[in-house]
Amino acid sequence: MLKFMKSLNSISRSQAIYRQRRLVTCDLQACHHAFAFAICREPGRSQEELARELCLNKSTVARNLNCLEEKGYVLRKALPNDKRQLAVFPTEKLLTVLPDLKKVALEWTTLLSEGIPQEELEIFDAVLKQMQARAREIIETQEENK
Amino acid sequence: MLKFMKSLNSISRSQAIYRQRRLVTCDLQACHHAFAFAICREPGRSQEELARELCLNKSTVARNLNCLEEKGYVLRKALPNDKRQLAVFPTEKLLTVLPDLKKVALEWTTLLSEGIPQEELEIFDAVLKQMQARAREIIETQEENK
Repeated sequence: MLKFMKSLNSISRSQAIYRQRRLVTCDLQACHHAFAFAICREPGRSQEELARELCLNKSTVARNLNCLEEKGYVLRKALPNDKRQLAVFPTEKLLTVLPDLKKVALEWTTLLSEGIPQEELEIFDAVLKQMQARAREIIETQEENK
Repeated sequence: MLKFMKSLNSISRSQAIYRQRRLVTCDLQACHHAFAFAICREPGRSQEELARELCLNKSTVARNLNCLEEKGYVLRKALPNDKRQLAVFPTEKLLTVLPDLKKVALEWTTLLSEGIPQEELEIFDAVLKQMQARAREIIETQEENK
């Protein structure tokens, strides 16, 4: 029972392969899709806010944003009220590929959930959401106690 | 309902942060824990077999194994019946840290599932296993059609 993380991580890695192969003409790496969605959902957030939203270390976020900026997918500007903080915005290039990213994400979840009874999917989704909230709490507590 | 991958990927990334912080004295990266478990579970498998088991591209597996070999965690030897293929074995260093990796993995899953009714956890686990099998099928079909 307590081995569910093996399945969970395996699904996550499989999705990355699926994304990469479905979007072979796009130079956005599979690991950047989550960034793309988070940045377009709420443009102008700071790198720190993105790190919190995505459950990633600040250094990982900075490294990935460097890569996304080099490829022309994002722009970073100093926050007016705190010049040390950078706000992150999508470029036209990112907004142009966004519908394809969404299409492939929907394809994947539709394929994965095919044939699974709706009731079971609902329980699965509710448990997953509880675990996500718990996971965030755990790492935030860890951060405070560092 | 069809947004469950966002929660799933977020849990996966949170686990990576948790692992890194809990094992701060160990120079094994969080993304290498899955390799460590797979290699110790069945020593001597080829890189291709590991790629299949872990749902990763062959090039990703080769790159990560280079890193693990440099750090002294794995050894690679040519397979006796096919010199082009490399079999992967754990070193003493990997076997020494393995109990800590297992302990931290168990801590994480215990924390995540605390307070969730057993019945719901069982449905969650069953759905996750079905999705894992489906995910593997999808990427294997993609691979065949490349």
